[in-house]
Amino acid sequence: MAEDNTRPPSRRSLLGWGGAGLALGAAAAGGAVAMTRSGDEAVPAGDAGAAVPFHGAHQAGIATAVQDRLHFAAFDVRTDDREEFVQLLKDWTRAAARMTAGHTVGEGAHGGLAEAPPDDTGEALGLKPSRLTLTIGFGPSLFERFDLSGRRPKALVDLPKFPGDNLDKARSGGDLCVQACADDPQVAVHAIRNLARIGFGKVAVRWSQLGFGKTSSTTPDAQTPRNLFGFKDGTRNVSGQDTSALAQHVWVGEKDGPDWMAGGSYLVARRIRMNIETWDRTSLGEQEDVFGRDKGEGAPVGKAKEHDEPFLKAMKPDAHVRLAHPDANDGATLLRRGYSFTDGTDGLGRLDAGLFFLAYQRDVRTGFIPVQRNLARSDALNEYIQHVGSAVFAVPPGVRDKDDWWGRGLFTGEA
Amino acid sequence: MAEDNTRPPSRRSLLGWGGAGLALGAAAAGGAVAMTRSGDEAVPAGDAGAAVPFHGAHQAGIATAVQDRLHFAAFDVRTDDREEFVQLLKDWTRAAARMTAGHTVGEGAHGGLAEAPPDDTGEALGLKPSRLTLTIGFGPSLFERFDLSGRRPKALVDLPKFPGDNLDKARSGGDLCVQACADDPQVAVHAIRNLARIGFGKVAVRWSQLGFGKTSSTTPDAQTPRNLFGFKDGTRNVSGQDTSALAQHVWVGEKDGPDWMAGGSYLVARRIRMNIETWDRTSLGEQEDVFGRDKGEGAPVGKAKEHDEPFLKAMKPDAHVRLAHPDANDGATLLRRGYSFTDGTDGLGRLDAGLFFLAYQRDVRTGFIPVQRNLARSDALNEYIQHVGSAVFAVPPGVRDKDDWWGRGLFTGEA
Repeated sequence: MAEDNTRPPSRRSLLGWGGAGLALGAAAAGGAVAMTRSGDEAVPAGDAGAAVPFHGAHQAGIATAVQDRLHFAAFDVRTDDREEFVQLLKDWTRAAARMTAGHTVGEGAHGGLAEAPPDDTGEALGLKPSRLTLTIGFGPSLFERFDLSGRRPKALVDLPKFPGDNLDKARSGGDLCVQACADDPQVAVHAIRNLARIGFGKVAVRWSQLGFGKTSSTTPDAQTPRNLFGFKDGTRNVSGQDTSALAQHVWVGEKDGPDWMAGGSYLVARRIRMNIETWDRTSLGEQEDVFGRDKGEGAPVGKAKEHDEPFLKAMKPDAHVRLAHPDANDGATLLRRGYSFTDGTDGLGRLDAGLFFLAYQRDVRTGFIPVQRNLARSDALNEYIQHVGSAVFAVPPGVRDKDDWWGRGLFTGEA
Repeated sequence: MAEDNTRPPSRRSLLGWGGAGLALGAAAAGGAVAMTRSGDEAVPAGDAGAAVPFHGAHQAGIATAVQDRLHFAAFDVRTDDREEFVQLLKDWTRAAARMTAGHTVGEGAHGGLAEAPPDDTGEALGLKPSRLTLTIGFGPSLFERFDLSGRRPKALVDLPKFPGDNLDKARSGGDLCVQACADDPQVAVHAIRNLARIGFGKVAVRWSQLGFGKTSSTTPDAQTPRNLFGFKDGTRNVSGQDTSALAQHVWVGEKDGPDWMAGGSYLVARRIRMNIETWDRTSLGEQEDVFGRDKGEGAPVGKAKEHDEPFLKAMKPDAHVRLAHPDANDGATLLRRGYSFTDGTDGLGRLDAGLFFLAYQRDVRTGFIPVQRNLARSDALNEYIQHVGSAVFAVPPGVRDKDDWWGRGLFTGEA
């Protein structure tokens, strides 16, 4: 069996399930092809079937061009055995490298034996890699375990309670998180499910969230996606290709400390419920005043085009764009990577819908916290939204090669 | 503004939102292009951006090649005013024709006035039609209103309680349903949201369900999608292009009665929770015995290829495929159009995931009921699944032209 290296490998069994035996060679070759590529940006948005390299200086899924779908899971640790937990991180790393390359979780013959459960749950068989990225983060509570308290980064602070917060504990916190992004929801769901399965007895899913957003197959590439309020969202976001902005605002620098976080980032996740029905009864003029941009084009108040420089003083003092702008927050700049969600109905006939906000930053104290303090105090949008879930995580640097593993720096103390 | 008729229209505002005034001509022309096409099958699967014609002998969304995503909503009626309800059905029909063609809900100037709420909630602006279909159904309880009891079809029976049913009332029933399918979830969510908004005060969402399935952008066309148990699902489904099978098993015939249902169908919706974690600890051999097919290829027991004719007696007596086969159910054959769902976590750390089963048939009494009686009694799969939601609807025939409307036959008594 020859592998066609010019095309992304198809996600398929490495085994002749149903009795054919071993076929490891081709699959391993396919994996190697994907893994020896380097740099997050090798795979452009829109090539929905391709594989994003897993190994590199930074974890994929941050600067990577945003995929269509999200399955995000927060986990609680269920073991006090440090070795067992470290082994889980190693097992997860290996599985993540395989799944992001478009392969099944396991490669051993036991996955194909009738007497044993399959290594892989199978629902992604035959699907392409779909630009799957898996990004791990460590929550503040993890540092209370395994004698890690001395290694907690200063930049990983507990978030303060902001005015208006109405947080559901069942949708907040977590010792660990894994962000799965892919152009196919089945691929993202498959990845989280298989990690949860590998972690059975050692970790348990605390909460999870599915999200959707920009659709590469139907949204023109140059177009900014719209949130569920109907407004373009992300016009002035940090670009994953702007290495200088990434270095300034997103990646933890070597001097920032601790050493094991160099090349990492910090993630704030907020489940923001939108009061869709109230918003939909609000006049267009009010909607545009609230955001500080027009709805059709997305141009800032007084300007003609979406990408025109905003003139903040032309906006109402409580306009969302004005209050969230770096100029209003000592330059605080976040790389946002959020997704819309619609989780059915809330029992009162209202859609349980909103924005699952994900933001990466170099330091939570100078990133999300000042911006959200400003917004929580004054934002005109607060009449239409409510923050109902919250979590913060230290996102370690990338897995360098096949001998490296998620969290090695944290657990060994070596950078 | 000229419309390029050779490409599907982009979903966009018909108005210069933000102050530009009227631009109805181009939009109306674009709509007409889409609407004068005929036949559900004009748009092949995979052309994710295209529009599916709304008008025709049958409603789109049944024989139409399955789209990637689902947003399904059941509604309760909140008005006793027949005229008001009929007007809502007319308004919905008009909005559905516009949205499926890739347009915003409204075309009038008031959508662009700053003083009024926009006609359209806006989050699908700029997105392509994405093969959106909107399919309406009428539940048994609707016939207890508006003096309609004499028009209830005999084939629309209340479903019996099946062994093992564990139905949540909050996820069951409904006076009305709308099935929105599209290749972009944002387009499907937008459509249901705007219909709910138009219906405010007259109907209210009772429950809703998002689903995902085959992904045109990443699944090879010829491949049968897999369910969350990892097995191919739908190998022997009724094809939307097999007009003779559709006439025999799906479409209500002219002699079947009542007249207003000719060309319609009946829909059974079941929310089937899968016990993912239990399944994932089950051996491959047991999994394959339960289904009666092998996992990798999907071939029936004893056969080599997925599409080989199953030999039922080679399967275990309680194998799912054996019990669901038409030969085991007096020929009962359903057009299945279900989607996988993952709705976060259930509070016990388990994924709330499964299959949102949707099946269309000519008569519920000779379709779903005998098949499910057989399965509920004996299916080996019952150890791993539970039916937690249920509903049944009469799905009227297609909207013939722009003067026709959803439910006209039911309310006027004319075919």
